[in-house]
Amino acid sequence: MKPKLAMIAFGGNALLRSGQKGTYEEQLANVENTCEQLCPLIEKGYNIIIGHGNGPQVGAGLLRHDAASKLCGLPAMPMDFCGSETQGSIAYMIETGMERVLRRHALDRKVVSIVTRVEVNPQDPKFCNPTKPVGPYYTREEADRLAAESGAVFKEDPKGAGWRKVVASPEPIKINNIDIVSELASEGHIVITVGGGGIPVVDTPQGHKGVEAVIDKDLASALCANQTGADEFYILTDVPKVYINFRKPGQKALDTLTVAQAREYLAQGQFTEGSMAPKVRAGILFVENGGGQCIITEAGSLGDESCGTRIIK
Amino acid sequence: MKPKLAMIAFGGNALLRSGQKGTYEEQLANVENTCEQLCPLIEKGYNIIIGHGNGPQVGAGLLRHDAASKLCGLPAMPMDFCGSETQGSIAYMIETGMERVLRRHALDRKVVSIVTRVEVNPQDPKFCNPTKPVGPYYTREEADRLAAESGAVFKEDPKGAGWRKVVASPEPIKINNIDIVSELASEGHIVITVGGGGIPVVDTPQGHKGVEAVIDKDLASALCANQTGADEFYILTDVPKVYINFRKPGQKALDTLTVAQAREYLAQGQFTEGSMAPKVRAGILFVENGGGQCIITEAGSLGDESCGTRIIK
Repeated sequence: MKPKLAMIAFGGNALLRSGQKGTYEEQLANVENTCEQLCPLIEKGYNIIIGHGNGPQVGAGLLRHDAASKLCGLPAMPMDFCGSETQGSIAYMIETGMERVLRRHALDRKVVSIVTRVEVNPQDPKFCNPTKPVGPYYTREEADRLAAESGAVFKEDPKGAGWRKVVASPEPIKINNIDIVSELASEGHIVITVGGGGIPVVDTPQGHKGVEAVIDKDLASALCANQTGADEFYILTDVPKVYINFRKPGQKALDTLTVAQAREYLAQGQFTEGSMAPKVRAGILFVENGGGQCIITEAGSLGDESCGTRIIK
Repeated sequence: MKPKLAMIAFGGNALLRSGQKGTYEEQLANVENTCEQLCPLIEKGYNIIIGHGNGPQVGAGLLRHDAASKLCGLPAMPMDFCGSETQGSIAYMIETGMERVLRRHALDRKVVSIVTRVEVNPQDPKFCNPTKPVGPYYTREEADRLAAESGAVFKEDPKGAGWRKVVASPEPIKINNIDIVSELASEGHIVITVGGGGIPVVDTPQGHKGVEAVIDKDLASALCANQTGADEFYILTDVPKVYINFRKPGQKALDTLTVAQAREYLAQGQFTEGSMAPKVRAGILFVENGGGQCIITEAGSLGDESCGTRIIK
């Protein structure tokens, strides 16, 4: 019997917990812990593709580029370049952690990481209204100068901490090398891809060109799950299930959620933007495009057959 | 007929020329130019694996980590982590440049980049005498403090510019995921691997563990060439051929070089250490381990059938 394919998305926060400084040792320990929690799926014989976030890591990268530009005049590279750096380093940490787990459980699987560009539409309306703050804080004067030099958009931090560059979060439309990802996963290798949502590029007559943007890693993972024919799409978060009336009277954990119900709850504002709402949207996208089921849960629950909230057609 | 497989190694300097600041635009233009020069091999139908250096790029990375550690207290990551970052970013730039070239020449090939760990022997004698200076310059006091904290070795710059960390350059003994690299290349994809010589790791009972070291990219590429059964191994440099009496009376370009001759010239000190000598050694290694021929030349000569110096058995 052909093994089932699971696409698993987890956040950059699975590698770097709040309150931690983000040392190499901390991130490696976190990632190994997350990989350990994926073991039930691997032991059941699933083929696995992993998509991961890079929020804290690319944030640190942008600060490093900025600091070295100030301190020793090294050119600060654009966001797509910084994203590609995190694809290398996070993949390296996941490979290291996953291999330790596989060895401990005597599981004979290879882990392979693909640097992945993801195409977005240059006409995506999100480019007209960039909203995602990234990188260092600047004074108003610095921000004005950088905006004039680079054409980037800067906005004032709502808490008054300064001005930051804001970038768009366009929709992923095409994953580069998706056939290769699919092939490697079908051979039983654990494949790491769409790191940080993928390096965002737009197509031009000459070839693909990087853009400063952030692709939502859950949306990129949903697209990857659809295009590789994944049977199940796991979105890992820090709560065991999706809730309505979350942290309010009448809070209720959801076991299953049809696409229609999910849309209704989204319209009611039941799910927090920037947190659960994009995950539910990614789950809807997967199921609507022919995917089996999307499971939103915490990594620690994966051993439980009835874990999480299942979004179904 | 099965296509021939060529392994091509080029230096980090193919991406960043001396005198340049290393902006994104400069590096992209350089890499596209190098990819254009690889076209004759692609047009002849060769399957291609690319190994690349990362000297200037990992140098910049180490400075960025150091600067952000000083300026905003972000943890400075170890060398293996910085190497993994450059695998992501250089692969991204090569993919971008190569894709532009392929499109211009209407060549239907995919480019795929594999994050690659390369195993070294923890007992490698090179670890006893690290010699390769990396990262920022420190004062004697700073160097002493860092050495006490981390156990790293620091040496004074011979020109008196300060103290720098020195790391070992151990021999590569095993390339992770080499079967996958081989498989993808045999399908006609242009595969990018062993970036910067590979992320150096040692095996432990728990799994592979990163070490602070630099693997020579020509040696790692030679091993990759052998283990993938490459027919030809191209080492690209900035001169068209290997010379004896280089820049001296009696300078002579070599068309072919048997392994025995190459060893003799090496013993005579005909090839500069840190420059041509390691390339000739990598070529010997490839041929001695069953490879067909190693061609040392400049990228611009690849269209010429009789280009470069051929190391043969």
